[in-house]
This record gives sequence, C-alpha cells and structure tokens, in this order.
Amino acid sequence: MDPRYSVFASRFVGPSGTRLLMDDLGEALAAGEDLCNLGGGNPARIPALQALFRARLRATLDDGTFDRVSGVYDGPQGNREFLRAVRDLLRREYGWPVEVDHIAVTAGSQSSFFILFNLFTGHCVDGRRRYLDLPLTPEYIGYADIAIEADALRARRPLIEHLDARQFKYRVDFPAFDLAADSGAVCVSRPTNPTGNVLDADEMSRLVEITASADVPLIVDNAYGVPFPGIVFDAVEPVWAEHVVYCLSLSKLGLPGLRTGIVVARPDIIEAIRSFNAILTLATGSLGAVLATDLVASGEVLRVVTEVVRPYYRQRVADAVSWCARHFDGIDYHVHKPEGAIFLWLWFPDLPITAQELYARLKARGVLVIPGHFFFPGLAGDWPHRHQCIRVSYAQDPVQVEHGIRVIGEEVRRAWQG
Amino acid sequence: MDPRYSVFASRFVGPSGTRLLMDDLGEALAAGEDLCNLGGGNPARIPALQALFRARLRATLDDGTFDRVSGVYDGPQGNREFLRAVRDLLRREYGWPVEVDHIAVTAGSQSSFFILFNLFTGHCVDGRRRYLDLPLTPEYIGYADIAIEADALRARRPLIEHLDARQFKYRVDFPAFDLAADSGAVCVSRPTNPTGNVLDADEMSRLVEITASADVPLIVDNAYGVPFPGIVFDAVEPVWAEHVVYCLSLSKLGLPGLRTGIVVARPDIIEAIRSFNAILTLATGSLGAVLATDLVASGEVLRVVTEVVRPYYRQRVADAVSWCARHFDGIDYHVHKPEGAIFLWLWFPDLPITAQELYARLKARGVLVIPGHFFFPGLAGDWPHRHQCIRVSYAQDPVQVEHGIRVIGEEVRRAWQG
Repeated sequence: MDPRYSVFASRFVGPSGTRLLMDDLGEALAAGEDLCNLGGGNPARIPALQALFRARLRATLDDGTFDRVSGVYDGPQGNREFLRAVRDLLRREYGWPVEVDHIAVTAGSQSSFFILFNLFTGHCVDGRRRYLDLPLTPEYIGYADIAIEADALRARRPLIEHLDARQFKYRVDFPAFDLAADSGAVCVSRPTNPTGNVLDADEMSRLVEITASADVPLIVDNAYGVPFPGIVFDAVEPVWAEHVVYCLSLSKLGLPGLRTGIVVARPDIIEAIRSFNAILTLATGSLGAVLATDLVASGEVLRVVTEVVRPYYRQRVADAVSWCARHFDGIDYHVHKPEGAIFLWLWFPDLPITAQELYARLKARGVLVIPGHFFFPGLAGDWPHRHQCIRVSYAQDPVQVEHGIRVIGEEVRRAWQG
Repeated sequence: MDPRYSVFASRFVGPSGTRLLMDDLGEALAAGEDLCNLGGGNPARIPALQALFRARLRATLDDGTFDRVSGVYDGPQGNREFLRAVRDLLRREYGWPVEVDHIAVTAGSQSSFFILFNLFTGHCVDGRRRYLDLPLTPEYIGYADIAIEADALRARRPLIEHLDARQFKYRVDFPAFDLAADSGAVCVSRPTNPTGNVLDADEMSRLVEITASADVPLIVDNAYGVPFPGIVFDAVEPVWAEHVVYCLSLSKLGLPGLRTGIVVARPDIIEAIRSFNAILTLATGSLGAVLATDLVASGEVLRVVTEVVRPYYRQRVADAVSWCARHFDGIDYHVHKPEGAIFLWLWFPDLPITAQELYARLKARGVLVIPGHFFFPGLAGDWPHRHQCIRVSYAQDPVQVEHGIRVIGEEVRRAWQG
C-alpha cells in the first residue's frame, strides 16, 4: 500500500474478510456455471418472487413511475411512499409506535452498519472512547472491517449447547456479558449470519434490558428476519424499544443488486442517518424501495413470505442437512441448528488443517465457502474453534449445493488422512 | 447533537451545505408542482432519453437480465460488461491506454469523492498530514463536507475576467497556485459545478504538469463533461495521464436515482476503491450500469449526447440567459459564461443582503436556489464575493425556470429598496 494513503483508508485497503467475500462473489459471477458458489450471501432465485418484481417493474415503466424515480435524486431519508408503507406495516403487524421519522432508507445493510457503528463508537464528542459490544460470536463477517477506529469491536465466546442429530446451538454467555461504561452500542444479527442461530425471546429480552440499563442502543441486524424476508423457521417476535435500532433489507427478499437497506430507530438516530446519506452518496437509490412499496403497503409481502419464501428455504435447508448426513459419513462434524438465514454453519472438531486451508483446497476444486475465522469480529484471544468451522450457503442451485457438500466431505476426509 | 456520538460522525451530523441541498430536493419532491425547484442538481427529463432507458429496461426484463442483476451482488469493482464497455469507449474515442483494471463503478460521484478525498488526505500512513488542493473556487458544494478530517481542503480565489454582455469567467490564478509538499491531491470539476466554467486546454495542461511534478493525483470531476453526459457547449478534450483520476457519472445522463459513478484511474487506486466499495456497501447497485452498457459499448451514447443532450441544454441555457436579461432589468448583475453543466451562476455585486438571506426570501416565495457561499470549500479568509452569488438550475421545466428568474429579479430589487 502507498504509504501516502491515509490512516483512515489503510483500515479498508488491503485484504479483509469482506473483500475476500465480495471478490469471490465477483469471481463466481464472472465464472458462471464453472464455479460452485456456496460462499456469498446471494439469495435464492425464487421464480415466483422474480415474477412478482418483474411485474412491479413493468407497472412502473407503464405508469411513468420509473421515469420519475430514475430521473431524480431522492431525499436523504429515502423514498417517502416507501417510508410510509414500512411505518404502516410495523404499526399494523407489531403495534410499534413508529412514525416516518423513525425510518430511513440506506444503500443496503452494510451501509447501515457503517453509519451506525461509526456513529456510536470511536473517539466521541464528550472526549471518551466507546466500543461496540457483540454479545455472541460467531457474528457477521461484514462487521469486522467497518469501524474506522481499530479494535472498536469487543466480542464474547458463546456457550455451546449440544443437541440431537449432530446439531448444536450457540447461546449468549450472560454471566460473562456485562457492559462497561465505555460501551457505545450492542449489536446482534437475528437470525445470525453465519450460523442460522435465532436468539430466543428470553435472550432478546435480557439484551433489551441490559442495554436499556446501560443506556446504549441495541442494534438488531434483521437482514433475514421478520417481517421480511422472514427466513426464520419457527415463530419469532421482533423486539422493539426506544433504544432498539432495527435494520432491515430488501436483499434477501431477492433484490441485493438494488442495494436497499432500512433502519428503524429513534428520530435523532434517523436524523444522523439522513446526514450520512447526503454526505456519503447524496441520496440512496430509489428503485428497490419503489418495487417493494405496494407489496409492503398492502401487506402482500407477508403472504409472499409465508407462502413462498419461508417454505422454499425450509425445504432447501432440510435437503442440505440431509446431504451432510449422506456425504459426511464417517466424519466427526456438527452443524449449527439452522433456525433461519440461508447458511449451514459446519463445525469439524479437531480438524487437522485450518478452515482457511480447507477454504483454499475447496476453492482449488471449484467450490467456494467462507472460512469460519472471519466470523469472530472483535474476539480477543485464541480459540481453536474459530478455525474449525465454515459457512456454506444452501440458497444456490440444489445440484450445486449437494455437489459442494460432497466435495467438502471429500476434502475434510483427505485432511484427516493427511 | 448527542455528545456520545463519535467525533467522526460529528463532522457529518448537523447542518451542512450538502444536507441543505438534499433536504431541499426531498422537500421539493414531496411538494411536487407547488415548489419551483432551481436548487438541486436534478438533470432535465428529456423525453428521447427517457424513452431510450425505458426501452433498455424492457429489454432486460424480457431477456432475463433484470432477474440476474437484481438478484445477485455484483463484484466490488462493478459490473464487468459495463467496465469493458467504458474501457473500449475511452480507448476508441481518446486513445487512452486503459484496461478494465483502470475502471471502477461506485455508488455515484459523491461516493467517488468520499473515497478519493479520504484516501489521499488526512493523517497518512507515513506519519505526515496531507491536504486536498482546489486550484479554483467556486467549486462543488459536495466537496465541503466529505473529508473526515476537519480543514482538509485548501482553496484559492479565482481571477475574474470580465466579458461582454454582463458575462464573466473565473480563471485559475496560477501565480498564486503552488503545491506544498503536504498536498495529497488536487481536484477540479470540469465543467465546474456551480459556475458552468470549463477550464481551458492551457489551464488543464498546466494543472497536469504541476501535479505531475509534485507527484500527486489530479482528480477531474467530469459529472457534466465528455464523453458523457457531454453537457459542455464548445469542443473540449478530456485530459489523461497516469496520475489523473477521472470521475464520471450516469446521473446527468438522466439516471441520478440509480446512483452510478465511474472512476478511471491507476490500477492501485482502483484497487483501493474496490476495498472501499466492499466495506462501505458490499457492492454497488448494478442497474444503472446495465442500462448503459449497450449504449456505451456501441458508441450510441456519443450520438445521443451530440444529437439529443447537448442541443437540449444549449437551447435551455440560451433561454435562461435571455430571461435574466428580461427580468433583471435595472439590476447590477453578472452571469458566469455558461460553458457547460446545468446551472447559471449569478453574481450581484454589492448585494445589500447575503446570498443566504436571498435564498431564504426566495424559498419563502416557493423558489429554491443554492446560496453561493456553500461553493467555496476550503477557502480561507473573508471574501464578500461569496455572499453575492447564487446557483440556479436551468434544467427544470422552462416555465418554472422563467418564473424563478422573475422572482429572483423581484427579490434582488426588493433587497436594494431595503
């Protein structure tokens, strides 16, 4: 790296988990069918959903809406009709006392986290330095690199609860989770990317309570949760409180290419997001919001989630788990209970090579996954567990997913053989 | 502002020229016909261009491209086919020796500047602090707020050349423009937003030479320039050298709502942009690039610029200038020679109120403009000139533009009458 680059940029430039992930996605995109891409977070292409968005887009072409929204800059809080539609849905479905001032559109969830993490952490106006606390790891790879001050994240190891059928579940280690006075915010993804964990109602209410007592925001990354895209397999209630910052996205509903994130939070936080949006990009892209407005306003999105999205992923995860059982025969493996999101989190205890090495060997065979150690942002100390896990998307073409799982089995066996 | 917010965020949160601009745009959008919006940078809605983009979008719906691009994350450098199309156009038209590695897509020009300004300025890895030098002001409002370190910009006053017919032209004051050793980069917009100035070939070659000698990048903000959108009224050659960073955008070609910026630069700079893209937003939206790919690849975009875009704005600016002559009768005013971009830069010498006050009075009458003082980012010292100018878009509906100019005339006259 050029030593004349800024210290700020040097945090971002160069290798990172997020760069690896997105480079691999780009490479897979260029390679087409030649690469079995179980690495990235691309949602499944569900024909019924695609048809729905195509129909919406055709309608915007026919009625002049497309001309209007493509040809102007939106305001820095995002498309007004969409904000109203989201407000109405949250009031109607969950009774949340939110107004339009509680909601902003961003250029996708990653952009939401960039804004929020850097709003609440680092050297602060009052002279203190604050940190982002993650109650649980593994956590989302994208959190690792976005805080502009180094070492801004602090994470905890989870408790591991063993379940039947080679499954396990991470649990927040509450006795070890206390918030210091220098906590700036707490963040969890629910469902968790990469594990498919869903923090249960008790865990969530304890987190809400702890953060309320400490007077810090609780950021809930809901990229896979309810009300949409609803990729969560048991009934789940979203939490709300004045200090909760709820992050949603249209990506896993099928529109990652249109980069649309949504933040629901206190008006003063939304106000800060407006400023960030204006200064980072002037305005956010409007098309994703426009395509989703009627779906959200009418509540049809809930029907689509219940009748199309959730059953689709439910079937896909059941297949993927059964393919593990078939192709991992004789291997000591565990899989995190897949309660939501679009990944299997595979744990190979005492794996004789690192997850990074397994990733490299799999990539050499044309199968992309993400090595586990990228999913422990802010976790201090060495913990062998993080080198024994990989994240595998089950959202892609089933033939590819089964092929990938078979190759993973072969390579893990080969690692043991030596 | 909450004193627990970060110092980083405090640079962005709160009032700024960019926030004012984008809030006004959002307000005008919500108000519809009730507000005469000559403030923002929305391009004109040119029917032939809109028809072209609608046709392209319909084609992507019909052939499955829309499903493909909306449903996946692009790589962090942007859509490959689009990068190739831009490379081919620049090689073919200008003979620039660029490869795909010289080009990246961003979430719009503002995002390009956020990345570039913060890559080249601030506290640097080698321990020095570097600054961004603007050879000329007035310059683009959006530059003012995006450097994450305070006071990162340094600007110069221009020379003023008086021309016929109440016109004038700003010139770089080269004797006063020397680059200190702590310069990190130099930036100019060409055509200049807000003035419509086009730095001439001599000025550009001197800037290329000075920056080459100092071994710093020369960032050329080409949001309105050639090859597209080509809103520049006399023949102009774009400059290229290995240290030039050329920033383009699809916004003024008619697609601001799709947020698509393009950077052409040395591969090491493009590599840094890839990382920023991945970490700031994972990927950039792909739809703008996809809609423009064939136009750029075939070179049809050049025909569209020559036959549609440029004649359209040429007529509009001629009208706007004539309306000034009509409605500013008896007022001491000057207008910057409109050589490109979509604004009139009006100067009222010795105006007895500030441009900010004039802005407020105009807004009270339903006419939005931008007060001039926001367009002197980094200019030290007090210079009354900056409070005597306003930026007026002539890209909107002609009836509105004439109405706005009439109201400006009335309010300036009223200011003099006290």
